[in-house]
Amino acid sequence: MKTYIKETITKEINQEVELKGWVHVFRRMGKIAFIELRDSTGIIQVVCVPAEMTPESAALLDNIRPEFVLSLKGIIQARSEKQIRAEELTGKIEILAKDIKILSEAETPPFEIENETLQAKEELRLKHRYLDLRHERMANNIKNRHQVIHFFRNHLTDNNFTEIQTPILTKSTPEGARDYIVPSRLHKGKFFALPQAPQQYKQLLMIAGFEKYFQVAPCFRDEDARSDRSPGEFYQLDIEMSFLNQDEILNKIETMMTTMVEKLFPEKIITSKPWPRIDYQEAMEKYGTDKPDLRKDKENPNELAFSWIINFPLFAENAEGPDQSGGNKEKFIGIHGKLAPSHNMFTQPQEKDLELLDKNPGKVHSYQHDLALNGFELGGGAIRIHDMKLQEKIWDLIGFTAEQKKDFAHYYEAIKYGVPPHGGVAIGIDRLLMILMGEKNLKEVTAFPLTSDGHDPMMDSPAEVSKEQLEELGIELKK
Amino acid sequence: MKTYIKETITKEINQEVELKGWVHVFRRMGKIAFIELRDSTGIIQVVCVPAEMTPESAALLDNIRPEFVLSLKGIIQARSEKQIRAEELTGKIEILAKDIKILSEAETPPFEIENETLQAKEELRLKHRYLDLRHERMANNIKNRHQVIHFFRNHLTDNNFTEIQTPILTKSTPEGARDYIVPSRLHKGKFFALPQAPQQYKQLLMIAGFEKYFQVAPCFRDEDARSDRSPGEFYQLDIEMSFLNQDEILNKIETMMTTMVEKLFPEKIITSKPWPRIDYQEAMEKYGTDKPDLRKDKENPNELAFSWIINFPLFAENAEGPDQSGGNKEKFIGIHGKLAPSHNMFTQPQEKDLELLDKNPGKVHSYQHDLALNGFELGGGAIRIHDMKLQEKIWDLIGFTAEQKKDFAHYYEAIKYGVPPHGGVAIGIDRLLMILMGEKNLKEVTAFPLTSDGHDPMMDSPAEVSKEQLEELGIELKK
Repeated sequence: MKTYIKETITKEINQEVELKGWVHVFRRMGKIAFIELRDSTGIIQVVCVPAEMTPESAALLDNIRPEFVLSLKGIIQARSEKQIRAEELTGKIEILAKDIKILSEAETPPFEIENETLQAKEELRLKHRYLDLRHERMANNIKNRHQVIHFFRNHLTDNNFTEIQTPILTKSTPEGARDYIVPSRLHKGKFFALPQAPQQYKQLLMIAGFEKYFQVAPCFRDEDARSDRSPGEFYQLDIEMSFLNQDEILNKIETMMTTMVEKLFPEKIITSKPWPRIDYQEAMEKYGTDKPDLRKDKENPNELAFSWIINFPLFAENAEGPDQSGGNKEKFIGIHGKLAPSHNMFTQPQEKDLELLDKNPGKVHSYQHDLALNGFELGGGAIRIHDMKLQEKIWDLIGFTAEQKKDFAHYYEAIKYGVPPHGGVAIGIDRLLMILMGEKNLKEVTAFPLTSDGHDPMMDSPAEVSKEQLEELGIELKK
Repeated sequence: MKTYIKETITKEINQEVELKGWVHVFRRMGKIAFIELRDSTGIIQVVCVPAEMTPESAALLDNIRPEFVLSLKGIIQARSEKQIRAEELTGKIEILAKDIKILSEAETPPFEIENETLQAKEELRLKHRYLDLRHERMANNIKNRHQVIHFFRNHLTDNNFTEIQTPILTKSTPEGARDYIVPSRLHKGKFFALPQAPQQYKQLLMIAGFEKYFQVAPCFRDEDARSDRSPGEFYQLDIEMSFLNQDEILNKIETMMTTMVEKLFPEKIITSKPWPRIDYQEAMEKYGTDKPDLRKDKENPNELAFSWIINFPLFAENAEGPDQSGGNKEKFIGIHGKLAPSHNMFTQPQEKDLELLDKNPGKVHSYQHDLALNGFELGGGAIRIHDMKLQEKIWDLIGFTAEQKKDFAHYYEAIKYGVPPHGGVAIGIDRLLMILMGEKNLKEVTAFPLTSDGHDPMMDSPAEVSKEQLEELGIELKK
């Protein structure tokens, strides 16, 4: 059985171990060779003295090159005082090789694995992502991503939340961005859409009575990429709760996030605890943005300045008009509407402003809440409407047509059968990881991202498909 | 703050509590009314005596009907000896109502929530899935689904596995079933495919050096439905490990699954521990199937008979020929091939049989392993080939064309750079839950499934999309 490299430091001096991993660095000094052997847990120095090795192993030393995969038996030795590298995990010991087997050979990689500062171009890194992920920084980003998500899952499960998987093959509804669509073979001429978010499903789960739901949900938007917005797919921590007010919801999220940071990233400093809760109006006046960067020292990579923005106006002026993405994608905006919801059309207006809905809707405040972190919008949510009459009024105010309302016939039906007051939050997982890991681009915290122009140079996707395949789906390419 | 119903049994008699939930049953007996109030944690009896209540609350009793959502203040009382229902969680107490508020009204549901034995037709249940999920059995199935998946995640994380999300927008490759495809807007005429499984990504992650990977992975196959096969999407627990042999991998999975059953379902009995490991040949001769039902008592719903089937032949006769699904979907089969891989084309032949590859390939055994449970195929996997020359030989034997090899150019490239011996398992989560919960259909353990003919009567998907949307994607409907 293999000993993992990080376990070597718990072994006795002179103990024999069997290691398996990759040749990180290979150096010869005359007859002696030094291998830095790497596995998923660390790196250790292996000293290869031919006289100490089986003859077959010694002969292999002429062939071994970086990134070969080896199985290696050897003896743990203490390093001499001068050779101790105290800053390295295994810096006090080394392995004296006895027997080596080559499990797999390797050609020279297209970029260096050993030296990550010589960073290759994005296209090359993504084409050979399986090599790019061998870099310690990238492997750590992916492992930390797992740890962060796993923390959230444990925390929420311990607090009686149920994770529920909602459909990925679902329906195109007007939710703000372009949908990816999937032609149906069994229902020709019709299409599924990939969800931009599980917004409606999570509300339906509250109607179903689950009370506390979450999901690490894959979401899909056919939008052009930015450094803080993935092309294609991204993940959000989607949370919804019944019978809690806005304050209670924000408190729960704040506790979860603060505990995560303190537990997994003890070196990070949260600027203010509790997090400031800032009126939208105040944020715009004071900072000129609804996602202010409240760090005290913007040079400190370990500072995390969370803040809640609240008391948003329910509506924004529909300055853009129906957007240009085609079809029925009008960003929650009715074709003839002058008003667009600031958040989404399910957001609950504040009770004190309800009477303004008819007279002066632009003055109505809502129970929307946005979560800002270091100048990024990390997430958002709201208390939702749970009364059909109010929902209909909002749809009318934003100018929804009868046709558009039909797209929400399921919700119109569902809201008849006993809806609990409910609300929630969605947190961008990729963006959170990017900030936590001090990266400048979401691709650095995603195992297999698309390039900025939406293709995968490794798999060579998207790709052409056969005519027969299209025929079976009842579609053809436009000439 | 709301008291959850299951918490009421920990409170003192005469304590006041505030409950929030749904009216499960409403009965009047003269002036007195009885409400069975339901929330996500249980059901409790509420006695409404007008003289004990605020006048406003008492007046509401004329309006309340089943499935109304109430906020309710009352006093915990002990039931009289005769009225104790020892088999019910809250059977020793009841609530004497003091104040009631209606949070949301409800029309009469299209089917009964109270009585689940009067089961509605599938189409109606799925159209109102948010009501169907109010049934105790359905809510429990979904909650148990979460607990089972969460157990696996904790177990694997504690054993140093990393969960890594692989892409959902990926590439169409010949993997056995029809792909769902997604037209690309930025690369017109090209398509993404939804993954049938993360097979290649998990192997690439082993090449990247992660050593221990898992994922609760959404998978997609455009196949016709069966009771034990979902149309559209399903989830698999996808696991891959480096440097372990088949025995070690099977042991790890067996430990995980056995521990899960013993911890979450102590009432279940595992027929044999350790699980039998049966030769494929023996299984076929003795049971006539490679997924035998080894239960000692097939009437006992709590019996779980796991077994591993091993020593499969590497190839099966390609009796079917290229399948009829069109395009390049030939089930891992080369167009001109007479041999098809039993499992998949990455499966490692057993060393002892390597010399038979040329002379008598039908006699070669592989390191495939299938997991059978109570007559179902619960999962499968294999040790994979990690040597390019051997991989090429297999592709030639199954008759892969140069064109088909090009579809795997990424893997042909990746396998050059140091590949660890690796292997893994994929376990059908939906099917496992179906068996654990004693259900006859996968839909009973999925929150929002499609109907058998692949539509969602609630969302009304798939649906038509606008001409503009198709135009932007460069496709049109075939006339």
